[in-house]
Amino acid sequence: MVRLGIVGFGVHGRHTLAAGIFGGKVLNGKLTAVCDINPEKLAWVKENHADIKTFECPEAMFKSGEIDAVLIATPHYDHPPLAMQAMDAKLHVLIEKPAGVYTKAVREMNKKAETAGVVFSIMYNQRTNPLYRKMHEMVQGGELGELKRFSWIITDWYRPQAYYDSGGWRATWKGEGGGVLINQCPHNLDLWQWICGMPKSISAQVHHGKWHDIEVEDDVTAYAEYENGATGVFITSTADCPGTNRFEILGDLGKLVCEGGKLMHTKLEISEREFNRTNKEMFASPKSTTMELDCPGDAGHVVAHMGILNNFIDAISKGEKLIAPGEEGINGLTISNAIHLSGWLGKKIDLPLDEDLFKAELEKRF
Amino acid sequence: MVRLGIVGFGVHGRHTLAAGIFGGKVLNGKLTAVCDINPEKLAWVKENHADIKTFECPEAMFKSGEIDAVLIATPHYDHPPLAMQAMDAKLHVLIEKPAGVYTKAVREMNKKAETAGVVFSIMYNQRTNPLYRKMHEMVQGGELGELKRFSWIITDWYRPQAYYDSGGWRATWKGEGGGVLINQCPHNLDLWQWICGMPKSISAQVHHGKWHDIEVEDDVTAYAEYENGATGVFITSTADCPGTNRFEILGDLGKLVCEGGKLMHTKLEISEREFNRTNKEMFASPKSTTMELDCPGDAGHVVAHMGILNNFIDAISKGEKLIAPGEEGINGLTISNAIHLSGWLGKKIDLPLDEDLFKAELEKRF
Repeated sequence: MVRLGIVGFGVHGRHTLAAGIFGGKVLNGKLTAVCDINPEKLAWVKENHADIKTFECPEAMFKSGEIDAVLIATPHYDHPPLAMQAMDAKLHVLIEKPAGVYTKAVREMNKKAETAGVVFSIMYNQRTNPLYRKMHEMVQGGELGELKRFSWIITDWYRPQAYYDSGGWRATWKGEGGGVLINQCPHNLDLWQWICGMPKSISAQVHHGKWHDIEVEDDVTAYAEYENGATGVFITSTADCPGTNRFEILGDLGKLVCEGGKLMHTKLEISEREFNRTNKEMFASPKSTTMELDCPGDAGHVVAHMGILNNFIDAISKGEKLIAPGEEGINGLTISNAIHLSGWLGKKIDLPLDEDLFKAELEKRF
Repeated sequence: MVRLGIVGFGVHGRHTLAAGIFGGKVLNGKLTAVCDINPEKLAWVKENHADIKTFECPEAMFKSGEIDAVLIATPHYDHPPLAMQAMDAKLHVLIEKPAGVYTKAVREMNKKAETAGVVFSIMYNQRTNPLYRKMHEMVQGGELGELKRFSWIITDWYRPQAYYDSGGWRATWKGEGGGVLINQCPHNLDLWQWICGMPKSISAQVHHGKWHDIEVEDDVTAYAEYENGATGVFITSTADCPGTNRFEILGDLGKLVCEGGKLMHTKLEISEREFNRTNKEMFASPKSTTMELDCPGDAGHVVAHMGILNNFIDAISKGEKLIAPGEEGINGLTISNAIHLSGWLGKKIDLPLDEDLFKAELEKRF
């Protein structure tokens, strides 16, 4: 049994992670400690789960000897420093998304995890979604051929002004480090790179406080180019109602379209690139067949979280391969930072990212 | 009976326009003259339709007194000079798309039509497509509210290298004035502006000869901004296989999605903008209902052409309102030119377009 501690007993910590554990959804782990700065939350733990130790200070919990691993579910900026403190105490770490606000900090976490020899994972729970897993397997496995184009319109997370008014830290550069990119998009930016790979450059149109009275971005259209010439478009906003979630990927062997919980696959009989070279008819095109792929439906939010948590525990106790290893947290965040930077500077950003420039530009906005 | 003459007896002139007229699809007009530089085509006319006069020279046909109106179906660059010659002869004019390659020339055609007092229309036959007509009515009629965003992925016109190799003039700056934008897209760029209106700026990523051995563009991602803050994305290519045709429009009162011959409408009970201002709940959103709109299906290519042709004839004989008036030809072409210019110069292009700059930049590429 891996002994788990949670830092941050809020929406994610209590209502997703702890709820799943209490609900018997975690097989080889148990919750033995909870840390929060709010005494009321700790009082609830004491009253309802007397066997669980409570802490107001994360460091005390990390050094208590009561836990083997820690689940970090605090505000964004705290993820890296808390994770590194825990790693120093030789604890395994699972952090909520985003991995952080700066890629630099994520890089440091990864180094520390390696040095400390602990397991480090990120709650990219959408990687357990069967639709996205299938897309990842098909694109990375080569079944779609060479990537040519993708487009993802992901706007189905409407947020009214009341949402932004609910907490002073929300949607501020200093409090969150951004808007829709850093709060709603981390899963999708991770899936983008997990499925399609990392682009070589990003040009983005970023609108700050366009639909809401906020200082950060709430409307983004990003354009990416890949080393092989492929391009991609990513459109997001928190003001689209009704929103859309449509992810299309084209390779030289076919096309995937994920929308409305369905994944459609069109498979070409011959590579388009090869056909283009060899065909002699003016209006001909490669033959194809289209079918819906059989992916067991998305099992929902809590199950997805538990999928990552069980995998994290099995990685600790049985050496199982991580679904969402810490090293990969840097990729989605790099895309996020590059979009921000492109918007601020009004120009194309080449990757790898100039991390110091990003940090300086972000801090100008504090 | 309006007496019609056709200039250019090729794919459009003979197999679409004349075929429709011969097939009895035109009620109040008859074909009385045909002009082509190819004697074989004229020989076919003489042999099969002895009552139709044939001409090798357009001007001779225009001055012959045998026709009241002319249908121009020649290569792109010839549309404006031929149209103006016909207007000088007081003939009504219907030209194939595109209206021309330069907006300046289209502007001149419009002036001349006004001075000559003739009817001038453009073969924007897709305006008769019931799906697009419905979208036009709903957006321009205000049913969708204020425009917020559109995206159109229009890539379902695959062209292999053999297509481009079939004629030396194809896909050259000098021969056609561009690639996918000027050859495949004119209808769609017209529909864009007809349905959503004209943007105030365009930023485009334009790839020349990316997928084919050609000098002009075959892959475009364009981003547009509107005066009211709305944005749009238009993605096109001739190398996507299988291609996509998906047009989504979001207003503050709802959303339209046109794909696969279906038009889906989601209607909000209250304007999103108003809801955003007045709602007090963090995770609430306006209530909505989604339905498929009943649009009689697209009747096909020839019928669509005949719709515009019959309307043109009725405008001449009965003063009926034009579906695709000449003045509007400038709008789609302005968007096309702005996308080209943005791609060449690597920067955002504000509208109205600097027409002289566009012409100079295009001619640099001859």
